[in-house]
Amino acid sequence: MTAALIWCPFGDVESAEAAAGQLLEERLIACANILPAIRSLYRWNGERGKGSEVAVLFKTRADLLDAAVARLEALHPYDAPAISGWRCDAAGVATLGWLGAECGPLLP
Amino acid sequence: MTAALIWCPFGDVESAEAAAGQLLEERLIACANILPAIRSLYRWNGERGKGSEVAVLFKTRADLLDAAVARLEALHPYDAPAISGWRCDAAGVATLGWLGAECGPLLP
Amino acid sequence: MTAALIWCPFGDVESAEAAAGQLLEERLIACANILPAIRSLYRWNGERGKGSEVAVLFKTRADLLDAAVARLEALHPYDAPAISGWRCDAAGVATLGWLGAECGPLLP
Repeated sequence: MTAALIWCPFGDVESAEAAAGQLLEERLIACANILPAIRSLYRWNGERGKGSEVAVLFKTRADLLDAAVARLEALHPYDAPAISGWRCDAAGVATLGWLGAECGPLLP
Repeated sequence: MTAALIWCPFGDVESAEAAAGQLLEERLIACANILPAIRSLYRWNGERGKGSEVAVLFKTRADLLDAAVARLEALHPYDAPAISGWRCDAAGVATLGWLGAECGPLLP
Repeated sequence: MTAALIWCPFGDVESAEAAAGQLLEERLIACANILPAIRSLYRWNGERGKGSEVAVLFKTRADLLDAAVARLEALHPYDAPAISGWRCDAAGVATLGWLGAECGPLLP
């Protein structure tokens, strides 16, 4: 079992917490670190834009990464949220135990 | 096409925004999330140091990662900026569409 | 030689700085970027929880990643810290020079 991380900005803390809460309930993640007050510069429809956002780093397992990204995309209030996920190469022993217990399907 | 991310601190928001703006203009990235007010502890020339910085997470494509890192290194005001980039293993469907449209060479 | 990154939250800045300082002294990392004031939503022992934390992104080398994660787990004040590490695919030329000089065993 390997850890995985997902980075995704939101427009505000409320929508970030709502999506994180739902993903926690559905056991697709074990934790969400919410970083308030980031500043974003971007291109959208060929134009430059900038704005204030909230960034979230979601912690999950590699075997749940695709499902968590797809569910997050469905839950996110943006039409085209910027969701980037990656598998980890190392994790704490206790981290893996925690991920195994707190996300993924509940064992009978 | 796969997403990729680059993490790089700057000395201040102005230089972070200047570099991000140039990389956006050159279509080497599609977005920069700027995280103000980080505290850095480091080793430099064998000595310990600490200071305040601004962190930036740049979003690009895996096929542009090396070019974006090289250009960022040239643009960065530090002599030896700490630039770390990695390919992602998953991304939102709309995220990939956005990256395809907003960075990389303009199609005729 | 390749760069690697480790993400790990702490309960407060003091414990984050203490662990970062020890890893720097032991040349297991070359830098720690400390992001103050993150908000964490998580599952622990089957229950939902939330709290304030400090996030740290540690910079090291791929060949030191496992040792740095294991040492961080031993140093961390939590019983089960969330430690996630990953190898990078690209880094600045000067970044690799700095990582080579500032972490890893001292050459005779």
